[in-house]
Amino acid sequence: MRAKDLAVPFPTIALDAPVLEAARLLAGHNLPGLIVVDAAGRPVAVLPGTQVLRLVIPGYCREDPTLARMIDEPSADVFLRGAEGRSVAELLPREQPGPPVVEPQATVLEVAAVMAQKRSPLVAVAARGAAVTGGITLDALLDRMLGTA
Amino acid sequence: MRAKDLAVPFPTIALDAPVLEAARLLAGHNLPGLIVVDAAGRPVAVLPGTQVLRLVIPGYCREDPTLARMIDEPSADVFLRGAEGRSVAELLPREQPGPPVVEPQATVLEVAAVMAQKRSPLVAVAARGAAVTGGITLDALLDRMLGTA
Repeated sequence: MRAKDLAVPFPTIALDAPVLEAARLLAGHNLPGLIVVDAAGRPVAVLPGTQVLRLVIPGYCREDPTLARMIDEPSADVFLRGAEGRSVAELLPREQPGPPVVEPQATVLEVAAVMAQKRSPLVAVAARGAAVTGGITLDALLDRMLGTA
Repeated sequence: MRAKDLAVPFPTIALDAPVLEAARLLAGHNLPGLIVVDAAGRPVAVLPGTQVLRLVIPGYCREDPTLARMIDEPSADVFLRGAEGRSVAELLPREQPGPPVVEPQATVLEVAAVMAQKRSPLVAVAARGAAVTGGITLDALLDRMLGTA
């Protein structure tokens, strides 16, 4: 059992795609994150789902969430206005210590170790220097490790 | 629209529950994490899904995942042996800066701000000092903010 056997087709998103497209992909497919790719389809990062919220929430609310209680306008409006004109590239954390990527030949335990180390419930599968061929979620990995799938 | 309207019944797990029970809950329900509760059902922490992997992976593999490629025994055996006799309490990060919890009256934007601040795709809903009444996932929140639900 290798990474290529566990991987499933997984939505990717371009660095210059709009934030709103990322949010819609996440919401529509119940995904733990998105694989961000460059123009050649190579993995650049895994975007955690919670990261899409950071841009669209006013800074003072991020620091003290109870202040958000004071805002009585519909949250959808706040979200859409915050996302407008922003790209996925702006959502990525500044310090990128290498994205969670495994090669197709990686063992199940290796995939688990990468997830644990990067604290990412999603890893991309790609050969070195090549385009993404799929993704592995924590859920799929646990199913395999626990023998429930 | 308040947190209590967004919250759905969500599995909780006790601090002294076995790690294997946590892993099975996560895998069986495709959850982004688990709400950890004390004996009175009050929220203590939210356990990110990836955290269950940390205990069961040998330390040298966590630091250098490529070393995991050398282990040729079935990964299920490694997992089960690593989880044996361990409790959920051992999985929680040492530094707990307060769990992602909102009160039932919290606004949607407040829930979003807590998720963003704690980088947690799951928040527990509980009145101050009371038991957990439900959970809100990032997925459900995005559906609401984007108007797709």
